[in-house]
Amino acid sequence: MSENTALDRRRFLRAAGLAGAGLALPALAQERKPESVITEVQDWARNLGDGVQAHPYGMPSEYEKHVVRRDVEWLTAGRESSVNFTPLHELDGIITPNGLCFERHHSGIANIDPAKHRLMLNGLLDRQLVFTVDDIKRFPGRINKAYFLECAANSGMEWRGAQLNGCQFTHGMVHNVWYTGIPLKTLLDEAGIKTNGKWILAEGADAAGMTRSIPIEKALKDCMVAWAMNGEALRPEQGYPLRLVVPGWEGNMWVKWLRRIEVGDQPWHHREETSKYTDLLADGRARRFTWIMDAKSIVTNPSPQAPLKHKGPNVLTGIAWSGRGSVARVDVTTDGGKNWKGARLDGPVMPLSLARFYVDIDWNGQEMLIQSRVMDSSGYVQPTKDELRKVRGVNSIYHNNGIHTWLVRANGETENVEIS
Amino acid sequence: MSENTALDRRRFLRAAGLAGAGLALPALAQERKPESVITEVQDWARNLGDGVQAHPYGMPSEYEKHVVRRDVEWLTAGRESSVNFTPLHELDGIITPNGLCFERHHSGIANIDPAKHRLMLNGLLDRQLVFTVDDIKRFPGRINKAYFLECAANSGMEWRGAQLNGCQFTHGMVHNVWYTGIPLKTLLDEAGIKTNGKWILAEGADAAGMTRSIPIEKALKDCMVAWAMNGEALRPEQGYPLRLVVPGWEGNMWVKWLRRIEVGDQPWHHREETSKYTDLLADGRARRFTWIMDAKSIVTNPSPQAPLKHKGPNVLTGIAWSGRGSVARVDVTTDGGKNWKGARLDGPVMPLSLARFYVDIDWNGQEMLIQSRVMDSSGYVQPTKDELRKVRGVNSIYHNNGIHTWLVRANGETENVEIS
Repeated sequence: MSENTALDRRRFLRAAGLAGAGLALPALAQERKPESVITEVQDWARNLGDGVQAHPYGMPSEYEKHVVRRDVEWLTAGRESSVNFTPLHELDGIITPNGLCFERHHSGIANIDPAKHRLMLNGLLDRQLVFTVDDIKRFPGRINKAYFLECAANSGMEWRGAQLNGCQFTHGMVHNVWYTGIPLKTLLDEAGIKTNGKWILAEGADAAGMTRSIPIEKALKDCMVAWAMNGEALRPEQGYPLRLVVPGWEGNMWVKWLRRIEVGDQPWHHREETSKYTDLLADGRARRFTWIMDAKSIVTNPSPQAPLKHKGPNVLTGIAWSGRGSVARVDVTTDGGKNWKGARLDGPVMPLSLARFYVDIDWNGQEMLIQSRVMDSSGYVQPTKDELRKVRGVNSIYHNNGIHTWLVRANGETENVEIS
Repeated sequence: MSENTALDRRRFLRAAGLAGAGLALPALAQERKPESVITEVQDWARNLGDGVQAHPYGMPSEYEKHVVRRDVEWLTAGRESSVNFTPLHELDGIITPNGLCFERHHSGIANIDPAKHRLMLNGLLDRQLVFTVDDIKRFPGRINKAYFLECAANSGMEWRGAQLNGCQFTHGMVHNVWYTGIPLKTLLDEAGIKTNGKWILAEGADAAGMTRSIPIEKALKDCMVAWAMNGEALRPEQGYPLRLVVPGWEGNMWVKWLRRIEVGDQPWHHREETSKYTDLLADGRARRFTWIMDAKSIVTNPSPQAPLKHKGPNVLTGIAWSGRGSVARVDVTTDGGKNWKGARLDGPVMPLSLARFYVDIDWNGQEMLIQSRVMDSSGYVQPTKDELRKVRGVNSIYHNNGIHTWLVRANGETENVEIS
């Protein structure tokens, strides 16, 4: 391993650069690296391109068509009740573009006309209320927050060993978005919670009528009713026109197409909090109400879908997050855990938001066993998968935040592996 | 004006809410506000929607089709050398979605194959270098930064009085994006700047071969070579695969489709820094090298394209920025400048990045003359347009950062006006 050594800048220069001195464009033909030499004038430097009316709403380059959400066909019985995955290995920074945020549907994408959508507050309240979307947007105290959303089943297939070959599939049920909306507390205060109101039930307007119970303390602490993501209206597959934001808690609770908040004195024990989204232990009992997503991290590059192509300097990067606070530090190993090095966090590190980390490495073609390990602001350290299995067994598909391993082979190809 | 009074929450409640108590869904029919009552079950609650394979790269709801970049047909001779505008009145928070960032072309959108793109460094350097896009991404020290980009001609039509009816057109040549890339300094250090290297020339690969001169101090201070925006690859219309980022300085200098950096001992005096992007004064002389975008703000809602539709509580919001530092405060008047109130800044306030401000108002149907005024971290206060005109005359189309006025009429319709 050589990631701890100073980079050989001279070698990088020789690999990437020109040798000739003092010459302008014609010097390209004398460049030492034959595949870097381009002498012909390209079409885009000869001809006019599309004008300003061509793309009223812009899209990525045709050379980026491989950067898409992908599903795993055998994973679920039907497309409308399935999941696709964020292409984490193609992204950088901390924000997930709206078009690439993973989707999880229970009855497909509800295509809602906002003029016909309402949000009702009922149950143990002084006043039963119903709001148009327009009225929700008129409330004082509008806020903007960046939060990660992770599906409880993210990395679920990995409980029983390395199975899916790519961080898009092993860790791609997470995204990180700026939300605009109002605190749920604002609406609940408007309605007036009765003293025996201890839980809320959030309900979606899709055909599944998705529901989840949430303790009133969380509802009043930091939940939001959001209508915008990353600056523009919510996308249909993310709950347009209204979604519940439940920071740091499992994605299933972030009810999309939000149409109703009921206040009650106990949880409802509906399908999504009993037969689903509970963790079946080895002894047959199940953990329930395991809402908080514990600290987790993943190296996104290199990874199976993003192998190393060049020796010499390379950028190892990844993301880390915690449902209990902020990312305090990330350590990375390239030798399967013998040596660890602190990664550099770049970009804002915010509570309950993805953090981006980098380690600049110099790769000479050695095999590498790469892992990342996050510590959050509570002092919690991301465990190994074996440590998790000792406590939880291997029956669950939820809440796998174990340390993940990539094997980089001498040719740069990268595989999903497990080491003990 | 009543924006200083406490909100009448009871009245809001009566306007928006239910009167009936203790009832679930059937109570909707008893709601007092007839237009809020919806009793039929909607299609989206009956039928399965699109599944996870429907939209590998997602798009906005069909009900948001009006949220697009728009151009002004008479503004330029050709579409390929024109501009369109960010729909600021439809956005919130501080980040502009990639599909809605305004475009300014000089020869249309260069549709570049990244495998055939190179970045060359030449001129007064120890080593002349050429890089593939892949090699640029391998450099150590990758960074992520949010910066506003404003065209020098933003609000240019307003120098001679109120002309364009909508903040999309008066102020929509600005966007705010997270960039991923490396400091330009990293590349220049790799090449080694000779002691007489005092300026750089940045050149684009489009058919216009756009060039701008930049002092070496700025190039080394905070310029970036970026390949990603808001997490994903640059969009073609924003310079895919590489763009120069010149924080706080006029947008024309942020050369797109970046193919060459030349180092010289003086500026080049090319077209874009002589006949264009200079400010013609009343006496016939021209200001040149007016690179820094001074502090500016605009109320985006209400505005001509986003009139007020409801009396009672409403959210007044807008954006502010400064090329000299951070937004320190924003003040808002609704009575044409008689009274000013400090606005609430929400979301991260970062240097050289848009800031979002809010004032929660209670509107009873009075006419309002709305203005916003920003002060930046240098202590500079946004001037009135008349103050600017006294110094600069009205010949220029560039660098108009004057205070803007919206007139809200009793029916909520909003117009672009000027007051003295």
